[in-house]
Amino acid sequence: MKRRLLLVSNSTLHGGGYLEHCQQQIKDFFGHGVKRVLFIPYALHNRDAYAKTARDKFKTLGYEVDSIHEASDPVKAVREAQGIFIGGGNTFRLLKSLYDNSLVSEIKKRVLQDGVPYMGSSAGTNVSTVSIHTTNDMPIVYPPSFAALGLVPFNINPHYLDPDPHSRHMGETREQRITQFHEEPDTPPVLGLREGSLLLVEGNRATLLGTCKARLFTRGNPTTEYETGSDLSFLLTDRQ
Amino acid sequence: MKRRLLLVSNSTLHGGGYLEHCQQQIKDFFGHGVKRVLFIPYALHNRDAYAKTARDKFKTLGYEVDSIHEASDPVKAVREAQGIFIGGGNTFRLLKSLYDNSLVSEIKKRVLQDGVPYMGSSAGTNVSTVSIHTTNDMPIVYPPSFAALGLVPFNINPHYLDPDPHSRHMGETREQRITQFHEEPDTPPVLGLREGSLLLVEGNRATLLGTCKARLFTRGNPTTEYETGSDLSFLLTDRQ
Repeated sequence: MKRRLLLVSNSTLHGGGYLEHCQQQIKDFFGHGVKRVLFIPYALHNRDAYAKTARDKFKTLGYEVDSIHEASDPVKAVREAQGIFIGGGNTFRLLKSLYDNSLVSEIKKRVLQDGVPYMGSSAGTNVSTVSIHTTNDMPIVYPPSFAALGLVPFNINPHYLDPDPHSRHMGETREQRITQFHEEPDTPPVLGLREGSLLLVEGNRATLLGTCKARLFTRGNPTTEYETGSDLSFLLTDRQ
Repeated sequence: MKRRLLLVSNSTLHGGGYLEHCQQQIKDFFGHGVKRVLFIPYALHNRDAYAKTARDKFKTLGYEVDSIHEASDPVKAVREAQGIFIGGGNTFRLLKSLYDNSLVSEIKKRVLQDGVPYMGSSAGTNVSTVSIHTTNDMPIVYPPSFAALGLVPFNINPHYLDPDPHSRHMGETREQRITQFHEEPDTPPVLGLREGSLLLVEGNRATLLGTCKARLFTRGNPTTEYETGSDLSFLLTDRQ
């Protein structure tokens, strides 16, 4: 399998600029083979402003950006893309727009069959997985399905957050929410990617990168912590 | 209109017991006319345990509880209910179960036409409004629609949370999430009910109760804060 994915938890780390904390990994990932990256800004309302942000940043890394919202034919834009980057924002809005523009199967085909490198950040990471069932976002629009691109056979929870022992807030913790997901039948593992973490997938190898540990939730089992640098390739094996 | 609603932000306040912070309002609301309350535990996975929690608490307030998950015919249980209480948990799971059991139109009819008092807490408050588009919960299951009971013509965000100025977490604040909702066309006002707040609706009168202010978000307008005791009846007027 030619699959190459760079799945980033968050686009901005506290105190840093847009994609600053992972810019070296982005350059390593797209390398010299890719000259132009197709940006998908559907997760935010102001697509022009979002495209400018992405374009300005990628320019400093040596890449030109084409934003799909400026293309007359979005499907054709995906068919011709050398590399794809889906940015963060609202996951429901993003997935609905991907369906509305008939891009779900097209992106999947390009990435899994043609080996086009795919980078996602936050919501863009959510939609690369089995489903958006483990997003943190508010369901501001109703997508035709929660099934997502399925580029990997598990789910991710970006911006994973440990419980704050000093909080007096009584809303569910992130752990409680993911545990609720696993109360449902036939639910895949969920990798909790803390801010600063990213997952690199190359074919059938997955490696945890970034500055902190990640937490894995598997239905019916205790959670497990993985250090940065860990080989998480076992997550790419389809479940029986 | 006979409508009577008690919409609670949260079932448990930090340091207190289940429904302890609003127990006087619950007694005032159901009064002496109601002897038995129909409890809907669909938002949590363990319905037996949840029904016991509700039953034990309501007993101390002078009410018997029938849990709908123990009824052979849930629709009939709603038709015969003297009062209804929908508890918190996961809003997606709750709304899906209401649809799966054909209860949405039946509850709406009982409350709006027959004047059966309706109490909701957290997820139970979310489903009483226009839609669940402004829940905080994780979308662990896919309901057939986000449209909810529509007992009021606006949305509520329970557990409303002010931004933490010391946070280094870069996920969206609650305010940013609700603002994203209002970037979508034709979206109703959203009342942010902080923990400790509740809304009492009697016919066409709405009053903010509890221990703290509430924040109102209206599409295209600045947000407004309302003190406890405020008359919010204007929210019950259907928008043009």
